[in-house]
Amino acid sequence: MEEGAPRDRPGEFALIARYFRPLADGAAGAFALTDDAALYKPRAGEELVITADLLAEGVHFLPDDPPESIARKALRVNLSDLAAKGADPVGYLLALALPKDWTEPWLRKFAAGLRGDQKRYGITLIGGDTSRAADRLTIVITAVGSVSRGKMVRRRGARPGDALFVSGTIGDGALGLRLRLGSIDGGPAGANAKHLLDRYLHPQPRTALAPVLRQFATSALDVSDGLVGDLAHICEVSEVGASIDLESIPLSKGARALLATDPSALSTILTGGDDYEVLATVPARKAAAFTAAAAVGGVSVTRIGEMTRGRGAPVVLDRDGRRVELAGLSFDHFRSG
Amino acid sequence: MEEGAPRDRPGEFALIARYFRPLADGAAGAFALTDDAALYKPRAGEELVITADLLAEGVHFLPDDPPESIARKALRVNLSDLAAKGADPVGYLLALALPKDWTEPWLRKFAAGLRGDQKRYGITLIGGDTSRAADRLTIVITAVGSVSRGKMVRRRGARPGDALFVSGTIGDGALGLRLRLGSIDGGPAGANAKHLLDRYLHPQPRTALAPVLRQFATSALDVSDGLVGDLAHICEVSEVGASIDLESIPLSKGARALLATDPSALSTILTGGDDYEVLATVPARKAAAFTAAAAVGGVSVTRIGEMTRGRGAPVVLDRDGRRVELAGLSFDHFRSG
Repeated sequence: MEEGAPRDRPGEFALIARYFRPLADGAAGAFALTDDAALYKPRAGEELVITADLLAEGVHFLPDDPPESIARKALRVNLSDLAAKGADPVGYLLALALPKDWTEPWLRKFAAGLRGDQKRYGITLIGGDTSRAADRLTIVITAVGSVSRGKMVRRRGARPGDALFVSGTIGDGALGLRLRLGSIDGGPAGANAKHLLDRYLHPQPRTALAPVLRQFATSALDVSDGLVGDLAHICEVSEVGASIDLESIPLSKGARALLATDPSALSTILTGGDDYEVLATVPARKAAAFTAAAAVGGVSVTRIGEMTRGRGAPVVLDRDGRRVELAGLSFDHFRSG
Repeated sequence: MEEGAPRDRPGEFALIARYFRPLADGAAGAFALTDDAALYKPRAGEELVITADLLAEGVHFLPDDPPESIARKALRVNLSDLAAKGADPVGYLLALALPKDWTEPWLRKFAAGLRGDQKRYGITLIGGDTSRAADRLTIVITAVGSVSRGKMVRRRGARPGDALFVSGTIGDGALGLRLRLGSIDGGPAGANAKHLLDRYLHPQPRTALAPVLRQFATSALDVSDGLVGDLAHICEVSEVGASIDLESIPLSKGARALLATDPSALSTILTGGDDYEVLATVPARKAAAFTAAAAVGGVSVTRIGEMTRGRGAPVVLDRDGRRVELAGLSFDHFRSG
């Protein structure tokens, strides 16, 4: 155990008061972060959806990512989980391990990133913990969401014949990371390369989709580990199969451009992860109503396949109905980072 | 972003299934950790107390601490928060950042430590996240506790004239750490040195005190940053002062022995932290009833002072009524670790 921060920086309590207390302003049960714990008073008939995600420097973000972006990503990956479960965000706890060389300007920007997203997504800080890191920056956000009794959308529940939908576009985040790391040539994407990089840095949690999922979805999750691998999770717990129509997967202009010139983009799109789009199953007869309700909420959803009888890994079919072979089903932070 | 774990170790999903799913067995709303989030269904009239604590290697524990002990400490510091708030434990989320060189035997022991404490304290795993660490082991546990409506014990609420109580003995954890680091001579403590070392590794959350605090306490917290500094938090938000009678502070045999030969032990006892004992204020006329009710729950509590009019830092008085001067009020992980 070594010496801590220089004396010219605030200690833990001053830091919390300066940067985080304003983020808890007015939140019931947060007690302006002056207590040991947050208090949450559920309304009658309300159930709580609780999720935690850990982001570590060099694993989930790069050291030179802007602090505002790191903050947004940490919050948004949790908001994405809540949205996919049909839950409306209510509050979050932030556990922050700061490296030795943290600076006040860095922390100010980090807090500003959280503040902007709190307004955008209607969530407030209610508690947490701040400490020195073992080495490098590590962030854990635990988010609490709200659903009416029995309305949480589970991974379990998909049925054979259900239509399979995905929100937004797929593959952008993982391709953005590859551009960032220089493992794919961004030239063909032209001006759209910037969009891909932004999609990696700034996931778009589909908060507006939560009430639509509660109404229509038989199962859902957010795609964080890759489209095919996450679909496999639904198949496993729902005890069904799934078939994806490759041509129907919604791609951004940038992703299309990269795919046209580099075949390796395909497996990145299908299994790369970092999409934070919602993958949902909906009874086929309600598919049109689901699409329309999502559009009213401002979210585009695309039907990409269907759930099938039998169990096993999802199959991806090309335009001729041939199975596309995939090297690995999903991204695993333990295997490659 | 570098290469991950060797191929002979399980990936993230297998690891969760092997080591953590059994810890969530039978927990309602945990879905055997096969969903994206936990679901909590509050009972009528129930309110939730939520707390998160971050433990980083080299800051909150040492790399060669036994894995079972690290796991217990991570869970118990949260249980200690819940107990001090008068909340009964219901579930927790574990966010675990594993270093590159993690091994299965290490993780097996870590999970065994959690399993033992789950039984002991009546809490179950309901969710979380597992990932590679930026560098070294980092653990965040978010614990959820339950109180009846309006019954959470806050830091705010102490009144002048209230009796000041503390559970157990004070200073053992911080002295145990000093013994561990060799910054104090453990010789005088003799056989009791082992007790001090154990108190550092294994906090004893005063779960049994929760219902007693709900009944009697006007304010409470758990002493994690040091007796005097944590009391200052109560004073600040309750807008009162406090006076501690030095002679009445409950000390273990080991702490007494060290204090008798090394005067530096005094500031460690008063401001060192890592106690995880409950500090509570109780109306003076209820002091005897509080002590008796705590004893029924198997927890010894000691009256160590009283709350006073006026605001400001707590004062510590020696047997002659003279103020004891303290260098710093509390331990700060940012300043020294």
